[in-house]
Amino acid sequence: MAFDLGAHLVRLGILSSTSDHTSVVSINLFVALLCTCIVIGHLLEENRWMNESITALGIGLCTGVVILLTTKGKSSHILVFSEDLFFIYLLPPIIFNAGFQVKKKQFFRNFMTIILFGAVGTLISFSIISLGAVGFFRRMDIGSLDIGDFLAIGAIFSATDSVCTLQVLNQDETPLLYSLVFGEGVVNDATSVVLFNAIQNFDLVHIDAIIVLKFVGNFFYLFLFSTFLGAFTGLLSAYIIKKLYMGRHSTDREVSLMMLMAYLSYMLAELLDLSGILTVFFCGIVMSHYTWHNVTESSRVTTKHAFATLSFISEIFLFLYVGMDALDIEKWKCVSDSPGKSIGVSSILLGLVLVGRAAFVFPLSFLSNLTKKSPIEKISFKQQITIWWAGLMRGAVSIALAYNQFTRSGHTQLRGNAMMITSTISVVLFSTVVFGLMTKPLIRLLLPSGGKHSGSMSSEPSTPKSLLSALLPNGQESQLEAGGLIVERPSSLRMLLSKPSHTVHYYWRKFDDAFMRPVFGGRGFVPFVPGSPTEQSLHGSE
Amino acid sequence: MAFDLGAHLVRLGILSSTSDHTSVVSINLFVALLCTCIVIGHLLEENRWMNESITALGIGLCTGVVILLTTKGKSSHILVFSEDLFFIYLLPPIIFNAGFQVKKKQFFRNFMTIILFGAVGTLISFSIISLGAVGFFRRMDIGSLDIGDFLAIGAIFSATDSVCTLQVLNQDETPLLYSLVFGEGVVNDATSVVLFNAIQNFDLVHIDAIIVLKFVGNFFYLFLFSTFLGAFTGLLSAYIIKKLYMGRHSTDREVSLMMLMAYLSYMLAELLDLSGILTVFFCGIVMSHYTWHNVTESSRVTTKHAFATLSFISEIFLFLYVGMDALDIEKWKCVSDSPGKSIGVSSILLGLVLVGRAAFVFPLSFLSNLTKKSPIEKISFKQQITIWWAGLMRGAVSIALAYNQFTRSGHTQLRGNAMMITSTISVVLFSTVVFGLMTKPLIRLLLPSGGKHSGSMSSEPSTPKSLLSALLPNGQESQLEAGGLIVERPSSLRMLLSKPSHTVHYYWRKFDDAFMRPVFGGRGFVPFVPGSPTEQSLHGSE
Repeated sequence: MAFDLGAHLVRLGILSSTSDHTSVVSINLFVALLCTCIVIGHLLEENRWMNESITALGIGLCTGVVILLTTKGKSSHILVFSEDLFFIYLLPPIIFNAGFQVKKKQFFRNFMTIILFGAVGTLISFSIISLGAVGFFRRMDIGSLDIGDFLAIGAIFSATDSVCTLQVLNQDETPLLYSLVFGEGVVNDATSVVLFNAIQNFDLVHIDAIIVLKFVGNFFYLFLFSTFLGAFTGLLSAYIIKKLYMGRHSTDREVSLMMLMAYLSYMLAELLDLSGILTVFFCGIVMSHYTWHNVTESSRVTTKHAFATLSFISEIFLFLYVGMDALDIEKWKCVSDSPGKSIGVSSILLGLVLVGRAAFVFPLSFLSNLTKKSPIEKISFKQQITIWWAGLMRGAVSIALAYNQFTRSGHTQLRGNAMMITSTISVVLFSTVVFGLMTKPLIRLLLPSGGKHSGSMSSEPSTPKSLLSALLPNGQESQLEAGGLIVERPSSLRMLLSKPSHTVHYYWRKFDDAFMRPVFGGRGFVPFVPGSPTEQSLHGSE
Repeated sequence: MAFDLGAHLVRLGILSSTSDHTSVVSINLFVALLCTCIVIGHLLEENRWMNESITALGIGLCTGVVILLTTKGKSSHILVFSEDLFFIYLLPPIIFNAGFQVKKKQFFRNFMTIILFGAVGTLISFSIISLGAVGFFRRMDIGSLDIGDFLAIGAIFSATDSVCTLQVLNQDETPLLYSLVFGEGVVNDATSVVLFNAIQNFDLVHIDAIIVLKFVGNFFYLFLFSTFLGAFTGLLSAYIIKKLYMGRHSTDREVSLMMLMAYLSYMLAELLDLSGILTVFFCGIVMSHYTWHNVTESSRVTTKHAFATLSFISEIFLFLYVGMDALDIEKWKCVSDSPGKSIGVSSILLGLVLVGRAAFVFPLSFLSNLTKKSPIEKISFKQQITIWWAGLMRGAVSIALAYNQFTRSGHTQLRGNAMMITSTISVVLFSTVVFGLMTKPLIRLLLPSGGKHSGSMSSEPSTPKSLLSALLPNGQESQLEAGGLIVERPSSLRMLLSKPSHTVHYYWRKFDDAFMRPVFGGRGFVPFVPGSPTEQSLHGSE
């Protein structure tokens, strides 16, 4: 994320602050713990409450306690939390895979709602949390915090954790909720970047129309260029692989190139101070739409699972890491003399998070429902509650932001700063464990049908089946894109008139078929003949 | 590698010695260069001289020159060569993949020859190079080098580069040569560890029988325990995946677990001061024999290609890195006043490498031929020349060892040490480029049939085909292992008597079928019924 790179010296991760032997021990321990998490996660699979991230968080906490006891209170972690490790190595594979496996149709149909939630919603939440923090904390004696710090608290606690969302929501069971909450989390990142830049660069005492305008302009600049960069890199990879026909010589080259170009898009965005998360997300979408169809059969299976695996390992690593880092004795020393106050601050923040999110989910859902005509597309009240609840979790992004803001000038020992960092950790732990544990049961309670009426379209990377089963209509729209060709039917005009979002989709498909696919490849670029050898080799069951 | 960990403080790699922004720029440049290498490597695929590593080396050198010019001679590299980056991140995937894709039968049939080459051969080469260095360099005025340094030179330049071998030799075209030269390189690593430990710990002035005995004991200890650790980790992964039936819930868990356990085996070996290379190599062999058969169909395709891809990226990264690091201006400053002497030292070392390798390849091949009865198993003279030539390349291992020895006490500025480091780089560049370029044409010249008579058996991870084609005998032995069951045939006893190495193989298969497969899974653990659903799901195409 652009806002923290170049701003201050790195807190070094693996292999640098410690000696060689210690680092080998750390890596061993970490890899062994990762294996343990996977095995335990597998055994708990049928459990309706648990998920892998909470298991990892729990194991991380336990390990932290064990290390704390064996080192006699000296240190609780084997790795120092490093923003670099998080933003440069762990986050990109997770977000890329989310883009790669996302149900594109569901995502783009709700595009305006997602933008509304991610941009306007985050701003509302940010304002409420900032104002609330000013109101409550000024009255409490918790050390010196200036206006910048209060605004930062707003930004830190309005940063939805996309990774947690991926863990608790199931794309196949609740596609609408997934695309809304996860999409919001991705757009949320762009908003966070703008907010943080604003807090650190603008003169915040005199807010006037020009600053607000600059702010909005900045947001659109970031959003458009990040998206463009992601789409461009994705299309470039599709073009190279299609033009050079990479698979002719080696499958590995195709897979390598896809991996490296995806990573390149993220790093380029960081270099250009854009939102890497947005970029790599759209790169994933474009790659799954074009590049994935240009590679050989085995590359398709490999990329689908390899990207998911890398993302999976990164997620577990992340939660293990956060769990282990939470017990860092240094930070807790400063607040140990006033535990009551610390709990008070955490509770207030948690309350503000709950209120801040409620304050935008319900009004914006209402607004969004006004634009939809068919009742099936509207967000029901039960769904609104689930959206509110599922986005409450705060995760590693919040911790990274808190470190960035409150250890910036090196004054970690200041009471206010230490208090803020421990409160962030408390809120993250509490929200991930409690809200995370209760999301699955809540969804089962409120949406017993699993929200399946929202039509889960099959988009190949997420659900590769033989074409035969993909041809079976499993939703009213799937007929439209069967075989990648528009099937003109008598009812299509009426349908388009009644559902305006489909008009955009219709023209996009026309444009896609006429211009994009001939150049960049993709599912439709070889005419579909059922049972033909081309079809066999392109769409055959894996 | 055990000998360098914990011995001195790390020279930090990416992201630590430089500021944040610089590191983002470095990563961008590096990833972009990797993509370029892949595309150029693809375009040069049909070229009979080039291979990917030489392309990467060339691009690395060019980039070094460009950086040198743009920074006006200040620095030529964007990353400092870091032993950690090399030994902890780049080497494990390369060696693991080599073990995973190796033709096991070919490898084990030549096991004794490989051990002979890797252990005795390396010792011969080490002695000749050390003695030669003492003889030549004592007469030249190249700064202070003690007996330990001369022995280290012997160890550095007798370290065959397994990675280069993988690049120039083709397992399918020349299976015998591949298994001999590559296997030698792996065993060579254990010898190098012992040699280096000996040089740094033993009293080398008084070499007596006890030290030699200790030395031999140490070698066997390292070899046995490293192999055992690798096999144990591999079997553990097979057992866990089979017992828990991981694939039931998620393919990603299986793939993650295989990746993590393979890496764990390497890091455990490092922790226990064993040879990580040997360990991870045998872990790869065991995983391809057992674990790979226990996972789901798509996991099999994924692991096969994902491991190959990771190894591929690491290899290119490595060569790019060595190419870029070669022009480091610091090291060349010290020797720039006597370029003639520097060239002389490099030439002498190159000559010693040639002689040292010749001194063991031909005599040991002769010895090995004495034990073989059938002429088809003997190593012909032409093959001996190819073995000699293909193992001449020195690579990143030599550079890492040279850094370890000659920058240890921090006296990089000493003339003798600087001279040795630049000479190592010269020898590595020259041998990789010149010998590497000429290996493919040499093989075509000497072995026009491609040595295919050595019977390339199909071992699934390397050549996954439908079982139907695997059942077709493509070598005299393939009938023996068809379907994982020993087919007792009238001629089998005669065959076993005429080929003693097959006796070991026969008993191993019996043991494997009776004890190992029922516990750890593997191809044969479900009885083979042609066309049965079990067969379909277990052995289906890809």
